[in-house]
Amino acid sequence: MKRTHYVSELRPEHAGQQVVLQGWVNRVRDFPEQYFVILRDRTGIAQITVDSDNPAYAVAGELRGEYVVEVTGTVRERGEAQRTDQYPTGGVEVIPTELRILNRATTPAFQVDGSPVTVSEDIRLKFRYLDLRRKDMQDVLRLRSRVQAEITRYLDLQGFVNVETPMLTRSTPEGARDFLVPSRLSQGEFYALPQSPQLFKQLLMIAGLDRYYQFARCFRDEDLRADRQPDFTQLDMEMSFVELDDVLNLNESLLRHVFREVMGEELPTPFPRISYHEAMDRYGSDKPDLRFGHAFTDVTDLFRGGAFQAFADAGAVKVMVAPDLTRKQIDELERVAKQNGAKGLAWAKRGPDGFTGGVSKFLTDAAAELTARTGVQDGQTLLFSAGDWRPAVEALGAVRNALRDLFDLASGGPRFHISWVTDFPQLDQDPDTGTWTYMHHPFTAPHPDDLALFGTPRQGEIRAQAYDLVLNGFEVGGGSIRIHQPDVQAKMFAAIGFDEAAARAKFGFFMDALESGTPPHGGIAWGFDRLIMLMSGASNIREVIAFPKNNRGVDLMALAPSTVDDAQLAEVGVQVRLPAE
Amino acid sequence: MKRTHYVSELRPEHAGQQVVLQGWVNRVRDFPEQYFVILRDRTGIAQITVDSDNPAYAVAGELRGEYVVEVTGTVRERGEAQRTDQYPTGGVEVIPTELRILNRATTPAFQVDGSPVTVSEDIRLKFRYLDLRRKDMQDVLRLRSRVQAEITRYLDLQGFVNVETPMLTRSTPEGARDFLVPSRLSQGEFYALPQSPQLFKQLLMIAGLDRYYQFARCFRDEDLRADRQPDFTQLDMEMSFVELDDVLNLNESLLRHVFREVMGEELPTPFPRISYHEAMDRYGSDKPDLRFGHAFTDVTDLFRGGAFQAFADAGAVKVMVAPDLTRKQIDELERVAKQNGAKGLAWAKRGPDGFTGGVSKFLTDAAAELTARTGVQDGQTLLFSAGDWRPAVEALGAVRNALRDLFDLASGGPRFHISWVTDFPQLDQDPDTGTWTYMHHPFTAPHPDDLALFGTPRQGEIRAQAYDLVLNGFEVGGGSIRIHQPDVQAKMFAAIGFDEAAARAKFGFFMDALESGTPPHGGIAWGFDRLIMLMSGASNIREVIAFPKNNRGVDLMALAPSTVDDAQLAEVGVQVRLPAE
Repeated sequence: MKRTHYVSELRPEHAGQQVVLQGWVNRVRDFPEQYFVILRDRTGIAQITVDSDNPAYAVAGELRGEYVVEVTGTVRERGEAQRTDQYPTGGVEVIPTELRILNRATTPAFQVDGSPVTVSEDIRLKFRYLDLRRKDMQDVLRLRSRVQAEITRYLDLQGFVNVETPMLTRSTPEGARDFLVPSRLSQGEFYALPQSPQLFKQLLMIAGLDRYYQFARCFRDEDLRADRQPDFTQLDMEMSFVELDDVLNLNESLLRHVFREVMGEELPTPFPRISYHEAMDRYGSDKPDLRFGHAFTDVTDLFRGGAFQAFADAGAVKVMVAPDLTRKQIDELERVAKQNGAKGLAWAKRGPDGFTGGVSKFLTDAAAELTARTGVQDGQTLLFSAGDWRPAVEALGAVRNALRDLFDLASGGPRFHISWVTDFPQLDQDPDTGTWTYMHHPFTAPHPDDLALFGTPRQGEIRAQAYDLVLNGFEVGGGSIRIHQPDVQAKMFAAIGFDEAAARAKFGFFMDALESGTPPHGGIAWGFDRLIMLMSGASNIREVIAFPKNNRGVDLMALAPSTVDDAQLAEVGVQVRLPAE
Repeated sequence: MKRTHYVSELRPEHAGQQVVLQGWVNRVRDFPEQYFVILRDRTGIAQITVDSDNPAYAVAGELRGEYVVEVTGTVRERGEAQRTDQYPTGGVEVIPTELRILNRATTPAFQVDGSPVTVSEDIRLKFRYLDLRRKDMQDVLRLRSRVQAEITRYLDLQGFVNVETPMLTRSTPEGARDFLVPSRLSQGEFYALPQSPQLFKQLLMIAGLDRYYQFARCFRDEDLRADRQPDFTQLDMEMSFVELDDVLNLNESLLRHVFREVMGEELPTPFPRISYHEAMDRYGSDKPDLRFGHAFTDVTDLFRGGAFQAFADAGAVKVMVAPDLTRKQIDELERVAKQNGAKGLAWAKRGPDGFTGGVSKFLTDAAAELTARTGVQDGQTLLFSAGDWRPAVEALGAVRNALRDLFDLASGGPRFHISWVTDFPQLDQDPDTGTWTYMHHPFTAPHPDDLALFGTPRQGEIRAQAYDLVLNGFEVGGGSIRIHQPDVQAKMFAAIGFDEAAARAKFGFFMDALESGTPPHGGIAWGFDRLIMLMSGASNIREVIAFPKNNRGVDLMALAPSTVDDAQLAEVGVQVRLPAE
């Protein structure tokens, strides 16, 4: 390699050394009889100083932003007046003996020299190769790469086998919409791109691999949001002969390793665990942001059968203490509550003379007990949610998150708060139709003590051996101990209305496999993009993916998807059929 | 974890120790008053001895092959008479205090207990979860995983950034058939699955990432063979500011590291290099198997204008020394020559009185010189190929490989012979139509000294800065220095008949990127499946893939591809159109 140093390695101790640097012209500053060329490579920037008596002076005059250059020269320590600590190489400059233009550049669509980017995200996506020149973007991609390498190292040492599962496969049971791939060799038939390697990783356990992992590309044809892409990456893991604690312990060790090695952050031992019920009941979310408090207090009993009709009949009345809120802030929070299914947001302020405003007139009888239970202080506001338990807590949970954003409540606590949510229900019932479905997926093992409840009216109480990994209020992982006994699998299929024939049609090969000597096993999948988003502090999953799609599923740079020749479609046995036809 | 040991860890020094083992019943041997249960996990096997006075005796009697069990017991050193060295734990047995059946198993479709597998490959693929229980298969998957982990470790340390490129993209320029994915959000439009990340990795260099790698899943809808699958894995790499030697050196270091760490094999420093022309001229292949000799000798001049018409006019006459061949063997080799485009295979045997048989009567004048040049010994056979240079050497190259298989010629030499093939032509001309096309892909950089030949009748002489990595006669990698100058890219497009508009339509975004400040760069892609096939000694690429397709592109286990609901197709704007319709 001709390069002797990456740009940002240069320090005063290199003074006098001959170096070869290669990179991009970040900026040229044109002074009388002198150019300051700011050279950039992936590590940072350094200043090349070209005086008018330097043979490279003419070339320096040709340079424009984003030209690619090679600089051969000598490092010089800057004088006191020229020194800067705005960047790591601010104590030195390089005096070129040769300055070569390796390639020219058109004027970039936007500046990537470190100044703030003001263009729209669409422009950034169209010129992604420019956008990725920015330090922020490169830092994220390097972080992502480092995390992958550390995970690989750790799991390899722990005896995990990295196995690549099929990309052209059959519809998997996650229940989202599949991306389809027409087959040329079997015209009229279609592969599905995998929504996850769920069945394959269980098959690997049935095959005796014992410990499996994979960075798996997964595909779901769902409508896109800030934290979703049509194709995304999972860290997928599965272990045999384990119980729930074994999976959780291994994952905690792995995460501690990664955060320590890559971020220099210590995560706790063990991670806190919170049950699904407690998470919902106290924070109104199955992925509570625990960087801050503001847990709910249950006050259902204080109003039961009382005069305040809205609270008197409610299945649950929950209250959260908030700071002093303006009327405008209360209106905003009420809007959030309504968006999340509440009819309104009851409130009252605590003052020296008791509660005022909002629903305070209904609180008189309960005032002392309310104050005692919630610990509300003068000047603070109480926010109430009442109704059936789940919608009531969910609405107040959304209000809690809005309150966090409004008052920056998460910034005072730890940078990362990670926890497990456990004891999810095995089954979920549609409130309107009464239909039962799985909460995670149909292969999640129920708690062994709850098996007798299958097929009874109380099957909603069955606990799943499932767990979610929650980081700063985002679900970054989810998994479970799986069903390994064919009879339990049959009970589970029956509970969600799959008869034997329906189950066979969908998962016949898997049911055969399950009967062929299946070890107890369990695992997890991490939403890898989302984890990196949180580790890097990015606000959007697109910021941690090199070439993402926009929210219409379009690659604005390569212009995919696109139309294709009819002949190409004929080869794979399909034709376009648009609704208008 | 309840397990205290993997099965094959047990040794006489564990005698007296209490252990918990978990695994599969490999076999049960039923003796009077005694069961020998051979327990298997992913590490190997060990014997559990259950006498009739053992409380576990009744459970042992229930065991059948492939049952999943947990054994708690004490390790005992075997007596002299019982000891065996047929497997690593043959010096010990485990006396159970508890034997638990964790799961039962149906009778397997074929034995996976170490006995030879006699069922068809189709049956193995249908019951892949059984097939993968076999030691051979698990060894391959573990090797593959170890190699991935070592590559990751090495490249991470060398500053390479692992970047995931899009799976849903636009048709790429490799020229094979794309797999298409209809879009739901843009009905009537299609994504293509990537044939390789070629453009994206170049864009990452343009983006200043400097060093990139990825284990990339790639897709080509081509007819399948023993060493091809519709989706396969590449180790994909790209580096900026490099010259050809930099890429080759880095790859050699990486391969030496991997072979040393994973296989305990030393590869040479540096790897031999052979030019495309020499490889073709001397071995008749651009991926010559150099584990053995039998290079060709050129004897064109000896017959030029002579009496033997078939040799007299030939562009090239090549001869290879073979062992003493039977008539049947010669016939077989001639069949190979004909399959590879030759009209026949001329031969003659060297005896004490000169050449006999075959074309010997035409060799009289040249006999002394032939013997001198080839070094042929009494009893050996000369095999000739004559015609235009390329078909002549290619046919004899196929004969050379057939000779290797016939006489096991490769087994005497090194286990692995790795080399670079370099100096490929930049352009390839269709002998019938005269049309020029790229030899590698249109982004390969030509040798800078040959630029002036573009657009001249001599453009076939332009050398590409391309290289293939050849292991034991298989191409396991290929790459090049890429074109970074827009004007050279334009020349290249013009040479293959792409005018500006055609190039823009296909690669417009990439041509814009190329003008935005592109560093010199180059890279390589390893055929990862094929490399693992060779490292593991497997004969077929399907043996190194956990869940492969058969040669009709069918997953016989999951039964993919399959038909899908019309409604599902309607959502993505297509319908089936079969030729019969």
